[in-house]
Parts: sequence; structure tokens; C-alpha cells
Amino acid sequence: MDAAEFRKRGKEMVDYVADYLEKIEKRQVFPDVEPGYLRPLVADCAPQDPESFEDVFKDIEKIIMPGVTHWHSPYFFAYFPSASSFPALLADMLCGGIGCVGFSWAASPACTELETVMLDWLGKMVNLPKEFLAEKDGQGGGVIQGSASEATLIALLAARTKIIRQVQSEKPELTEAEIMGRLVAYASDQAHSSVERAALIGAVKIKSVPSDDTFSVCGSALKKVLDEDKAAGLIPFFFCATLGTTSCCSFDKLLELGPICNKENIWMHIDAAYAGSAFICPEFRHLLNGVEFADSFNFNPHKWLLVNFDCSAMWVKKRSDLIGAFKLEPLYLQHHHQESGLVTDYRHWQIPLGRRFRSLKLWFVLRMYGVKGLQEHIRKHIRLSHQFEHLVLQDERFEICAEVVLGLVCFRLKGSNELNEALLKSINDAKKIHLVPCHLREKFVLRFAVCSRTVESTHIKFAWQHISQLATDLLKTWEHNHHQQ
Amino acid sequence: MDAAEFRKRGKEMVDYVADYLEKIEKRQVFPDVEPGYLRPLVADCAPQDPESFEDVFKDIEKIIMPGVTHWHSPYFFAYFPSASSFPALLADMLCGGIGCVGFSWAASPACTELETVMLDWLGKMVNLPKEFLAEKDGQGGGVIQGSASEATLIALLAARTKIIRQVQSEKPELTEAEIMGRLVAYASDQAHSSVERAALIGAVKIKSVPSDDTFSVCGSALKKVLDEDKAAGLIPFFFCATLGTTSCCSFDKLLELGPICNKENIWMHIDAAYAGSAFICPEFRHLLNGVEFADSFNFNPHKWLLVNFDCSAMWVKKRSDLIGAFKLEPLYLQHHHQESGLVTDYRHWQIPLGRRFRSLKLWFVLRMYGVKGLQEHIRKHIRLSHQFEHLVLQDERFEICAEVVLGLVCFRLKGSNELNEALLKSINDAKKIHLVPCHLREKFVLRFAVCSRTVESTHIKFAWQHISQLATDLLKTWEHNHHQQ
Repeated sequence: MDAAEFRKRGKEMVDYVADYLEKIEKRQVFPDVEPGYLRPLVADCAPQDPESFEDVFKDIEKIIMPGVTHWHSPYFFAYFPSASSFPALLADMLCGGIGCVGFSWAASPACTELETVMLDWLGKMVNLPKEFLAEKDGQGGGVIQGSASEATLIALLAARTKIIRQVQSEKPELTEAEIMGRLVAYASDQAHSSVERAALIGAVKIKSVPSDDTFSVCGSALKKVLDEDKAAGLIPFFFCATLGTTSCCSFDKLLELGPICNKENIWMHIDAAYAGSAFICPEFRHLLNGVEFADSFNFNPHKWLLVNFDCSAMWVKKRSDLIGAFKLEPLYLQHHHQESGLVTDYRHWQIPLGRRFRSLKLWFVLRMYGVKGLQEHIRKHIRLSHQFEHLVLQDERFEICAEVVLGLVCFRLKGSNELNEALLKSINDAKKIHLVPCHLREKFVLRFAVCSRTVESTHIKFAWQHISQLATDLLKTWEHNHHQQ
Repeated sequence: MDAAEFRKRGKEMVDYVADYLEKIEKRQVFPDVEPGYLRPLVADCAPQDPESFEDVFKDIEKIIMPGVTHWHSPYFFAYFPSASSFPALLADMLCGGIGCVGFSWAASPACTELETVMLDWLGKMVNLPKEFLAEKDGQGGGVIQGSASEATLIALLAARTKIIRQVQSEKPELTEAEIMGRLVAYASDQAHSSVERAALIGAVKIKSVPSDDTFSVCGSALKKVLDEDKAAGLIPFFFCATLGTTSCCSFDKLLELGPICNKENIWMHIDAAYAGSAFICPEFRHLLNGVEFADSFNFNPHKWLLVNFDCSAMWVKKRSDLIGAFKLEPLYLQHHHQESGLVTDYRHWQIPLGRRFRSLKLWFVLRMYGVKGLQEHIRKHIRLSHQFEHLVLQDERFEICAEVVLGLVCFRLKGSNELNEALLKSINDAKKIHLVPCHLREKFVLRFAVCSRTVESTHIKFAWQHISQLATDLLKTWEHNHHQQ
């Protein structure tokens, strides 16, 4: 395919994507296919000779779309939102066209420098303390990671290197393996599974800190496990606080936890993957109070800030902590400007070596929406979640299971877990909307997350009426069966 | 921006990208900017109100392009190629439009299933042993990672988990920390820095195995360090073989190394990040002989197979080894079909949780080029590298420093490292072409990598004449200065 054909096909693809997103509401949100559906639809091996664009293009509707879960349908209420917007799509086209690999400053200075400045913009939007910004001569700064999981892992690894060096200098008789064997990381029992996974990868122990009855970790709970572990000769070194847990969007109490971590020489990382975007609204910024005690902070503009996946924003107060954990410098990656304080080589900030020009997405989205446009988006979602909450509360058969703070509503039928599992099954089998569940303590709970950029009040009403009707149908047979037994 | 405006702007962006790539030759391959150039050109913080697309668009040429290293210029001969092609750009547009996050089968079945099938296609193209394929009921299979660094890390972590379980079952008296303290990973002294980094992250020792005078690791070299380490009570568990080293594209001797690893219960991972794409040509497939002994294998279609970054293809013989190392399963990620053998949840195969629909790029590229089209691309690059090699060999002032097997030529002026550093500086200061250096043993060497999709014989000739002229100029002053001293 030459540039001339790309001009033609590219424009067709733009129209296809625009059509897809404009009419997405008409597609069934969750696909009908069974596992293994795709293999029989495609050849056993790659063709020897080129096929035409038309041949490939017509297979999109035939082979791909029947197996797509439509994350941007206004009937999609599962997981958390995955951001999408037209400015971000445009930026990604440019990113692909430039096609640079920005592992170092020299590999494409614009790629590195725009990222540093965009992370400053974004940091200012959520009113991060100045220490987290790079600005002209700051010690901190931001980086785009692929996902919050990577941010947590990077923070844990940096903390691990830091504590090992510290302990080794204080107790030179200990080997690295001995120190590693005593290290303990902590996170809420409500924290995302990626925190446990980061500890698994980093080969350190991890302990759950019990959350309170609002599913938040408070200072005394952390203090208690720390005291026990220190008494047992262990070395607490890392705490991952969560703002906006995946299960129910609860918030750990930073203002209590932060001072404890600082006092105990524990790296505090804040994972605000979903909730972080809301902090651009002054009325929600208080949820981030206490960030001043943290060593690193992360949230995902690719979740809720209209920047297409992947774009997970991470900041550290001391970039030297990250770089110190990873820096290895072969000659083919060294460059002339390296020693200047102005130069950032982002490969030392992340797991992969290569990186795309992802800051273009932030640049396009922040400028074309403006802070006000993005605040409007966040506020709409939160308004809609409260609308849904209100509908649930009006129905005595249901209960709300956790405080609705942002765009997530946890709810269930008053009754057994089996009953609620049956309700979820009937919802997802009907495929008019799509939800996923969670456990809150012993309870099986339905999660209703406001996700799509284009979701409106009518979709919320529809979703509720649909759920309510399915509940009515279910309760009829359920009571009947129960009565017969 | 609504869909109507996206249609208009998207088509403008298609034209911009087509223009950029069509006329890239006219741009200076390496930018003139100094560190910190970008910050003064943009605002201090994000705008409150939306800006127009036009405002953002005009800043691309004003702010971004002056700081871009043009990786797709036919005058770019640095690092290794970063793939780019029009079919891949089209697929990425579709990927962005669909915008699903394919962490599990249910999160978008097409995203998972196309990936599995495409990795089978690609595996067959390089004639991987059947055990690496997923097919309908294989135990192996492939996955798209973001980078070879991640593939190496994942392989090392899987190997670590496997050996720890094994040792614990044999010697229950050892703690995990004690076992970890004895584990050793190995790689060539020519291996990529990411292998050392993987060991650093995984908190295991790593040792360099000395390469021979062709910069390849042979069986006896590995055997020697293994015997020493075992005698010292250490536990060798992982060897990363490199096919196509970054410095000089040398090849470790798999046919000698593989049997040793198998006998010694060592996980053998093969990193063929750059070279792997060449194995689709039957005449280069012999370089992969011995892969049958490996546990995992990786190469980067985003380097040399015309699939835009990121797309690093990794295969394992036993998917259970990967999954076993990482599987954590919270309720909100569980789904109905999970236990079926047909279902792959790729989040257990990688570091991040989320993942884009990257297999679309493979699907578009493999079909629209066909195997023959891709072979042609590889063969053209290798032809051009031999053309450059030939030009170097005709000039007695220069020497070739390593066998030219694929698209990389390592060369230098006969003389001191200082002289060659000066030559590289004069090349990169002139900015007509762009190269990076490497060290081969004590020698400072210039790497000439054939990179661009559109590079032709005329560009190679130009590059050589330019280098040759700069060498003449340099030698004149150099000898003069030398004479004066």
C-alpha cells in the first residue's frame, strides 16, 4: 500500500470509526460468541500473496465485530470506564505516523519533552504539591506508564532498592537475600490485585491491611500491623494506598496514613487509577488531601479523562529514586546531552525500553476539551451515578452497599448471594446492558459503573427499568422455587 | 469535537501523516533543538476553555516537528528499525476506535482470539516447533507484549516461580528467601541491558557468559560457568540466549546451548528482538535452529516486520508456566467461560492488566503484504546492508568489525577509539544521516543499521560517500594535530 492508497483507505477508516461510534448504541453491548468462535472464520496461516484492503475491511464486520464487547456503548456499565474521545484518536494517528520510539531524549526530544510538560499540566490540574512537578529544575516529575499495574510495580521496585541500600549501609552484615526476606509491603484488603502481583514480581512479602466498615484503611489499622511486623523482625518498606478502590470506590485515609508512613520510613504510593481524574474538579479535590505525604502518585487518564488507552500518569517526588533503581547504560543508548539536568531519559522510569509518543494524546485532549470541558465530563458521570443510586433507593427490594462518591454504584437485592448471582446472570444473559460483580466482605454485589462518554440520563433510566423488571421476573420464580422446596 | 468534526479532522490528519511520510526525506533526520527547547513554546498549564483543532494542528509543525528524530527517514541508520507501514496505521485507527481493553476473554473475545490466531500465523511463518503454537488444543501459544524487555522479564519470572516450587518440594527446609539468594540467571556478555534489568527486578543474580571471537556464546562457555556456580552451591535456573545482539547482530549457538539447558533444568529464553523477523525467509531460518530446546521465544514485529510499535511477539511451550507465575483472580475479573480450555485470559501472560487490540495490526499487515511481501522487505534490507559492507571493504582506511548477517553493519576507521568517536561526532553533527555507536570488546564501533521501509540503494550510496568524505576531512586535521604533538 502506498501513500496514495493510504490517503483513500485512511479516510474510509475515519468514516468507519465515526460510524461505529455514532451508531454504537444499536449494537448489542456484549457479544453472542462462544470461546473458539474466531479460529474457524480465518485461514490456518498467513497468505503468501497480498490481499486487498477491501478483503480485509469486509472481514471487520464479519469476523471482528461479532466478538467485540462494546466498551463505548452507553449500555456498558462494567469494570470502569475506558476513555475514548475524538481528539485522542486524532493524536494517536499522529503518534503512529511519527512512529518514533522515545526511550531517550535523543531518540526523539519532542516525545520526551512534551511528556514532561504534559505531566506538569496534569499535575497542576489535580493540584499536586509542587514537589511532584518537574518544571524547570524540580526533583520530581511525571511519566506516562502503560497501566496502573506498572506504576505500582515501578514504585514498589524503587522503594525496594532504596530500603535495601539503606539497610545495607546500617547493617552491612546482612546479605541482600536476608534483607529481601524481611521486607514487607502493605495494601488495603480492598486494593487491586495488581498490588499483590507487584509484590509477587518483586519477591517481597505483602500483607493486607483490614479496611473499616466503609472499606477504607485508617491509620490505626496500618499502625497495628506495622507494630506486629516490626516486633517480629520484619522490615515494612512500602504501602500502597488506594483512592477509589475497584470494588466499591472507597478511599483510604491518607491524612492518617501519610504521617505514619513518613515517620516509619515507608514509601507511600497512591493508586488512584479511576478516581484520580475526578480531582480536577475542586469539589472532589479534598479526596486527594494527604498526597503531600506520598512518594509517588498515579492515576489513569485512560480511564476517565477521555484519553484513549494507554495513558497512566505517574508522578514521583524524587526522580532519582526511580532512576537509581534501574539505570543501566549501554553505549548505544548513551547520548551527548545525557548529563544535563534538563534531559529526561524515560526508559529509566519504566519496565519497557521502547515507548510511543503518548503525550500527544494528552496534549490534544487537554487543549481541545479544556479543563472546563473535562470537568463537565466528570460531573456528568457523577450526576448520572447519583441518578441511578436514587432509583435503587426508591425500590425497597434493593440496597446500596457502599457510599456513592464518584461514578460507581454498588447495589444488590436484599437477600442471598445466590439470588444476586442469579440477577446478574439474567442481566448479562439478556445482553441489553453489561455489568460485572464484586465481593464486599461476604456479600456478592453488583457494580454499576457509569462508563461511556455518550451515556445520558435516558440510558440510566432504561438500565434501571430493565434491571428492575428482571428482578421482578427473577423474584417470582425464585420465591416459587423456594416455596416448593 | 463530535463525530462530524472528527470525520473532517480525521481526513486532514490522514493527509498530514501521508504527507509527512511521503516527504520525510526532505526533513533533517536529527533535530537541532537543545534540551529544554519545548517548555518555553507551550503554556504553563492546560487551558481552561477548549481550543480549536486548528490551533492545535498548527502547533504540530511549530512545536513538535522541530524536536522529532525522524525514525522513518531513509537517512536514519541508528539503533534498529522501528517498523511502520500503512496497513499497520489503518489497523491502529481501528484499534483506537473500538477502544476495548482486552484483559480477559470476556472483556472482548475478538481481541483475545485474534491475538492467539495471529501468533499462530506468525509462529508458522518462522516455522516454530508445533509445541509453541496454541492451535485448538496446544499447551503452548503466543502473546503480544509491549517490548522484548517485558518478554524477557516475564520469562525470567515464570522460570523463577517454577524453580522455587521445584526446589521447595525437594528441599522443604529452605525458605523462599534462601532459594532466591542462590538463583542465578545467565546471558551473553553481548546481551541487551534489559536482561540484566530483568534480573534486577526479579531480585536474582545474573552472570555474563563470555562470548567467543564472533561475539556468540558457545556451549562450553556456558557449561564452564554453570559448573563453577553449581560447585559453589548456587542454583542456575535461567539462560537468555540472544539471536541478533544489539551491538553487532551476533548469534548465540543454540544447538550447543539448548541441550545443556535442558539437561541442567534451566529455562532457555530466546531473545531475537531484531533478527526474528528474518526467520520468515527460508534462507535465514537456519539461524533459529535449536529453538526446539527453548522454553520461550520472542521477537519484535515492531522492529522489522512492518507492524508499528508496540508489538513484541512471545511464545511459550507451556502456557501453564506463565499463568502459574502470576494468576490472581478477583471476582470482578472472573467470567463465565473462564474454565474452558479454549479461553485465554491474557492478563496472566503479562505485566500490565489492560491491553489494546494490537493483533489487528498483525492481521492487517500479514494479509496486505502477504508472506512474500514481507520476505521482500527483509531481503531488500539485507541486500542494502551488504551493499554498504561492500563499500566499506573497498576503502582501506576502514574495517568491518563483525560478520554482516542481516541488516546491521559494524564498521570503524582503522585506528584509535578517539578517532572513531570523532568520526561519529562529525557524522551526527552534520545531521545528514544518523548513526549510534557500540563497543565491541575494547573497540568503539559505528553501527550502520538499515532501518527505513523506504530506504533504497541511492540512500546507502549517499550515506557512504558522506561518511567517506567526513573521514577524509577528519583524517586530515587528525594527522595534522597528531603531527604537531
